[in-house]
Amino acid sequence: MRVGIDLGGTKIAVGLVDDSGLVIGRRRSPTLRDRGYGGVKDAVISLIRGLLEEHAVPLSRVSIVGVAAAGQIDGTTQEVLFAPNLGWVKAPLKDDMESALGVPVCVENDVNAATYGEWRFGSTDRVDNLVGVFVGTGIGGGLIFGGRVYKGATNVGGELGHITLNPWGYRCNCGNTGCFEAYCGGFYVTSRIRQRIEEGYRGKIWDLISGDLEVLHPGFIEEAAALGDELCGRTWREVVEYLGVALQNIANLLNPQVILLGGRVVLGTRGLVEEAIEVMRRRAMPASIEGLTIERTKLDEDATILGVAFMNEQIQP
Amino acid sequence: MRVGIDLGGTKIAVGLVDDSGLVIGRRRSPTLRDRGYGGVKDAVISLIRGLLEEHAVPLSRVSIVGVAAAGQIDGTTQEVLFAPNLGWVKAPLKDDMESALGVPVCVENDVNAATYGEWRFGSTDRVDNLVGVFVGTGIGGGLIFGGRVYKGATNVGGELGHITLNPWGYRCNCGNTGCFEAYCGGFYVTSRIRQRIEEGYRGKIWDLISGDLEVLHPGFIEEAAALGDELCGRTWREVVEYLGVALQNIANLLNPQVILLGGRVVLGTRGLVEEAIEVMRRRAMPASIEGLTIERTKLDEDATILGVAFMNEQIQP
Repeated sequence: MRVGIDLGGTKIAVGLVDDSGLVIGRRRSPTLRDRGYGGVKDAVISLIRGLLEEHAVPLSRVSIVGVAAAGQIDGTTQEVLFAPNLGWVKAPLKDDMESALGVPVCVENDVNAATYGEWRFGSTDRVDNLVGVFVGTGIGGGLIFGGRVYKGATNVGGELGHITLNPWGYRCNCGNTGCFEAYCGGFYVTSRIRQRIEEGYRGKIWDLISGDLEVLHPGFIEEAAALGDELCGRTWREVVEYLGVALQNIANLLNPQVILLGGRVVLGTRGLVEEAIEVMRRRAMPASIEGLTIERTKLDEDATILGVAFMNEQIQP
Repeated sequence: MRVGIDLGGTKIAVGLVDDSGLVIGRRRSPTLRDRGYGGVKDAVISLIRGLLEEHAVPLSRVSIVGVAAAGQIDGTTQEVLFAPNLGWVKAPLKDDMESALGVPVCVENDVNAATYGEWRFGSTDRVDNLVGVFVGTGIGGGLIFGGRVYKGATNVGGELGHITLNPWGYRCNCGNTGCFEAYCGGFYVTSRIRQRIEEGYRGKIWDLISGDLEVLHPGFIEEAAALGDELCGRTWREVVEYLGVALQNIANLLNPQVILLGGRVVLGTRGLVEEAIEVMRRRAMPASIEGLTIERTKLDEDATILGVAFMNEQIQP
């Protein structure tokens, strides 16, 4: 038996997984990050204990506890070096959890885990080379080369959200300008429209959200664009173009068999992916997209749980 | 003994290499591509025979003949699928050379071979992950991940010259707009200045080249910029910025231990690399460049010969 944990800034999801990759039980709770590292870590541990008790699985039958955290993980010690969404710096999560549970623990980056989970359990054939692109509030990426998660020199490989797609573009919270994330991340796209509405803009978008800025999300912006909203139309064409450019860059540079698209912006819109693929096809070198398939993620939240539960035993494709 | 061949659009260079990676002898000749596939192939074969005779090495002592060609190579058959500089489409070079020589032949992409040669023979420590960036007339890239050349789904991985760095930028000969190559490739940079001079522009650059457009190259443009030439200053600042953005994209996406810079634009200018590194540092995520070294290539032409002579036996780092 294995345990996989998706540890994010807003929620903790724990799954009990058998060795075939079946999720047998789940628990979740809000993260309550105000309690600090110690409080959150204890909450994770008690979620695990509760879940195991519920299913009458003793800790001795658990071969690995995998924790997927949104942050930079040390490749050797598996310390959480920096996790802005959790407010952690140099958190010795692996060591502390192993002491508490007496079971091997591995800590991995959450996007790498999700990509690995989708690769291993989400599709029928495990291709050699796959790039995961998760367009949500922000944008994360995961790379699988030769059937293994690619981590790079300091374990931060795959920071796809912060490749520059236009050096003179929008300011990004990372400090750079023109990042992929600043063009296509849900937070950034929504903020630009929100700001204009707050300044008095009224268009189809205003009707769609019934004047409630709280419900504004990229799906509404896409819909308003289709209905002829001028501001949303301009914004959405930019999102489509830059997502297409990002796909083209991935294809030309990495020539993967599969680009996997996930995240709320991808899954919560209608035509975005197909339109972005058109942009990619127009811009990419024909040989680079000859063997390419673009797929949507299939496992939703389980991708991270399954991925991190099995990342300690990476298999060949 | 091994034979390595650098087969380009203008010249053929053949090297006889011992198993330690020492180049024992060399021959070269112009490519004479007008003679077509058959003529060029026969010229390669006779260069090999001549070199072996000169060094009294019988074909039976040659374990492999590696050919590095500027083009797209089929990953399975090693056919040269498309080599615009040679004017070849679907050329069965491996099969034809094996029939003629009776020795195993392997055909590889020239930039992959150069990157592998530099990785294996150019530096003292062979890092896990290295990205080669060759900025010459055009721009090529080579990727080494986990100590092996990364080739991708259809064997064209590493087309770094055609990542888009600004979707609204200069037109590239590949059909896209805003490619790295269109901003920083020697052909494109020089063409933009040449055109303005032909239209009547006179500045420091005119004095540096003594009015002879034939000698114009990026080194002069950099020098003219330093002397206060307004047009060259503007152009060169753009080259620096976009090279820096390309380095930043590589660092953020691939987090390699080493980025290796080569090609005539890199090796024929004074401050370009250092200035571009500054741009990269300003734009990259700190964690992505923490473990990064940026080096110039060391082996010059021998990189390709050595790389392709040994690519059939890739070793672990």
